[in-house]
Amino acid sequence: MKQKLLYTLLLAAGTISGAFAQNGSDAQMLARIREEGMSHSKVMQTAFNLTDVSGPRLANSPGLKRAQDWAVNALKTWGIVNTKREPWGKFGKGWEVQKYYAAITAPYYHAVIAIPKAWTPGTSGPISADVVVIKADSVVDLARYKGKLKGKIVMLDTKPLEERSFKADASRYTDAELTELAAAAPSAGGRPRTAGNLLSFRTALNKFYTEEGVGLVLSQSRGTDGTVFTSGGTAYADTAKTPAPELETSSEDFQRILRLVNAGVPVKMEADVKTQFFSNDLQGYNVVGELEGSDRKNELVIIGGHLDSWHAATGATDNAAGSAVMLEAMRILKRVGFKPRRTIRVVLWSSEEQGLHGSRNYVLNHFGDPKTMVLKPEQAKVSAYYNLDNGAGKIRGIYTQGNDAIGPIFKSWLEPFKDLGAATVTVRNTGGTDHLAFDAIGIPGFQFIQDGLDYGSRTHHSNQDTYDRLNEDDLKQAATVVAAFVYYTSQRDEMMPRKELPKPAAVKN
Amino acid sequence: MKQKLLYTLLLAAGTISGAFAQNGSDAQMLARIREEGMSHSKVMQTAFNLTDVSGPRLANSPGLKRAQDWAVNALKTWGIVNTKREPWGKFGKGWEVQKYYAAITAPYYHAVIAIPKAWTPGTSGPISADVVVIKADSVVDLARYKGKLKGKIVMLDTKPLEERSFKADASRYTDAELTELAAAAPSAGGRPRTAGNLLSFRTALNKFYTEEGVGLVLSQSRGTDGTVFTSGGTAYADTAKTPAPELETSSEDFQRILRLVNAGVPVKMEADVKTQFFSNDLQGYNVVGELEGSDRKNELVIIGGHLDSWHAATGATDNAAGSAVMLEAMRILKRVGFKPRRTIRVVLWSSEEQGLHGSRNYVLNHFGDPKTMVLKPEQAKVSAYYNLDNGAGKIRGIYTQGNDAIGPIFKSWLEPFKDLGAATVTVRNTGGTDHLAFDAIGIPGFQFIQDGLDYGSRTHHSNQDTYDRLNEDDLKQAATVVAAFVYYTSQRDEMMPRKELPKPAAVKN
Repeated sequence: MKQKLLYTLLLAAGTISGAFAQNGSDAQMLARIREEGMSHSKVMQTAFNLTDVSGPRLANSPGLKRAQDWAVNALKTWGIVNTKREPWGKFGKGWEVQKYYAAITAPYYHAVIAIPKAWTPGTSGPISADVVVIKADSVVDLARYKGKLKGKIVMLDTKPLEERSFKADASRYTDAELTELAAAAPSAGGRPRTAGNLLSFRTALNKFYTEEGVGLVLSQSRGTDGTVFTSGGTAYADTAKTPAPELETSSEDFQRILRLVNAGVPVKMEADVKTQFFSNDLQGYNVVGELEGSDRKNELVIIGGHLDSWHAATGATDNAAGSAVMLEAMRILKRVGFKPRRTIRVVLWSSEEQGLHGSRNYVLNHFGDPKTMVLKPEQAKVSAYYNLDNGAGKIRGIYTQGNDAIGPIFKSWLEPFKDLGAATVTVRNTGGTDHLAFDAIGIPGFQFIQDGLDYGSRTHHSNQDTYDRLNEDDLKQAATVVAAFVYYTSQRDEMMPRKELPKPAAVKN
Repeated sequence: MKQKLLYTLLLAAGTISGAFAQNGSDAQMLARIREEGMSHSKVMQTAFNLTDVSGPRLANSPGLKRAQDWAVNALKTWGIVNTKREPWGKFGKGWEVQKYYAAITAPYYHAVIAIPKAWTPGTSGPISADVVVIKADSVVDLARYKGKLKGKIVMLDTKPLEERSFKADASRYTDAELTELAAAAPSAGGRPRTAGNLLSFRTALNKFYTEEGVGLVLSQSRGTDGTVFTSGGTAYADTAKTPAPELETSSEDFQRILRLVNAGVPVKMEADVKTQFFSNDLQGYNVVGELEGSDRKNELVIIGGHLDSWHAATGATDNAAGSAVMLEAMRILKRVGFKPRRTIRVVLWSSEEQGLHGSRNYVLNHFGDPKTMVLKPEQAKVSAYYNLDNGAGKIRGIYTQGNDAIGPIFKSWLEPFKDLGAATVTVRNTGGTDHLAFDAIGIPGFQFIQDGLDYGSRTHHSNQDTYDRLNEDDLKQAATVVAAFVYYTSQRDEMMPRKELPKPAAVKN
């Protein structure tokens, strides 16, 4: 309410600066967007439905389907048109946990905090077995365990995690960090994806476990204090072999068991894990909806974020937050009566966590093939794509992804949002999420700079990625800023400037 | 090893300062203590046996018995005499968890992180039931739930916890904080114990739950990120009525369930909790051992810490750490061939967590009644009692507990430990643990100042109080400093100065 009043006063006094002030109708519409976004937000209600109500949203799982159906229905209710679940091609099997229970029963009882690894089978009913520690660095080392692991609970001798509790879990960008970001040179950026060649021993080990018929595998999860991070799980292809049952185990429980066994104290465990694979529909789907344009209705502004999550929690910050913000931006724009020039499209991706499959295939289906750079006509019609997927923190600015011409435009758009903390434009690249699919085909694709909060330390892919981590003020701000960016992109006389088209050879992943 | 060399050099150069340097045999013996404590420590092995191997050590539980037996045996092995489990009077029933399982099954599956509350019964086998949220602030409000809770899983509508992740979990004392502490005026200090009058609604609620035959109570635990703090549990008296089954539930799981039910989304849960009460021996026991004195053998120096813990983990920082340090101090003193003047006694208390019962009753049995201040002869024979129970952090100094005359003595004893970070003497009181039992009967009783690390934020009474939290360097330092204090106290010509005797009316608790 305070912000609203301030803003109304500024508007009345004509002090709103920059590009924003150049056009009276811009200022009026943006004031209404801000009023709706900051004072009549539904973003937390949306986030609640995507997280608590829908549950975990692993690719092709029933939870993702529930969230997609909710989103389609919500968009329709708000008056967004052409809403649908749009298939993008074959992904693979869905999967969900239907029971998790594991405990030490000797030398004393202790229930274990762990998460069944994605796309692993359950145990053969309730099991009870000794724990065997595998000391092996190579396939050769495995020979001595041959014939000894049938039905056992096995764990690889693994070093404890490093401590890090002298550093706060959560942080926001400082002014100095933002200044540095604004002055930075272009960089590759992005989260690195795991290299395949380092995984060969792990692959051999998993094959050995399966052949030997182990009862259950315990692997040490990243995370401390009861926080358990999931690390992947790749057996979703309809042709994939079923791996051994596996629990990603809290580091404290893993190390306790390991210390005991290594000290010669026998550890017995009981476990009962049930998981379910779904192969009735192997297609992946994105959720799509539009606010139709007017004089430029064949041109597009696209916004999106991935709706799928890992399964250990409800993927609140990764990425119900981004999805809720993008849905809320659509709701705001419709609610304020905005009639865009260009058509505004929201797409909520799926299977992002397994390699940006939803967005990459969407781009392939609609805009062209980044491998060959053979383009479809619609590629030329997309002015820009905006993505949100760096946690639940508010927007502090935007990465230009090396698009120099676009910097001054973004700077002028951010001008009226300085009081909300969003002002920084950096030429740095950022990676790891769905704007890359657009960038790869020559469509201007952007991810916003967001405050990190406890995304890296606590929530990103962990069992703690729940609704509790969402901060209403941050999400309201983000939806308002996104709606403003969409507004500007839609109304601008020109399409957004593009970088040089990538060469076919320049394609990554 | 670096420290050892440095110390040897200092010793050879005759640069050791203060009281320490006044007596050549002091310096030699203290050098051997330091060498043994810092370079040949067994403190981590001791801590491992008290935590990982023994398990949770709730008062009168089998886990505590295992740890006590191990300690008695270890002391014997090291050559400590008069070792025993010494009964101190009636405590009540033992208790342990034998199975914990709980999960949401609708609107989707999710296993819940929680801990059965101490001294509560299990469920009636595996149960499956709807969750009912109780909205009540008073006994009157409960009437509308009468007859509706049979077999249900119930939770009181409870506010979410405050966030605090922008602050680091762990810290050490800064120089400035220690300077402030050294300059501080005397204070009451101590952890406050829960006031009984605030608990009346809770008591009525628990009675109502039992009468209505609820299937299971969920209460919100303090703690975030998968960390669950236990809050007590008081039904250990042999005459106590059995309360309802109760789970102290991680705040994230508790709030998720609450948000869903409050939004009208039915939540179903399944649970299977087994606990076991032990009433074959209602006596409480302390572990005792001695290094016998020579010319002053009828006088005593006592050191101790409580060995009992809460049950959610293995009580590593509360207080296996203190117990291991005190055992290690005895081992060091014996190992270096020290022949004390006064007898040195170690006592590991029990039932501290329920109100310092082990130490208070020990004092009552040996030294006198603090209610009447009728003293026993041995009260005059105890020179000092030293306690360690503020987590696993190293010793930074000592609280004089308002004993002004003792400040300069402690300062001179700490002089040679400045390089190990232990130098601060404060007249501040500290409370909450077993030195209070000695202080109450007029025996000089002290608790050391320790670095807090993540004791307050993560481990104190939580499911994360495990061996992982112990830092070898800290515990080695603490054992060395304690052994030195014991050495000085034992060898000093005079008994330690005493404060004025407390008046019978001045007794607290």
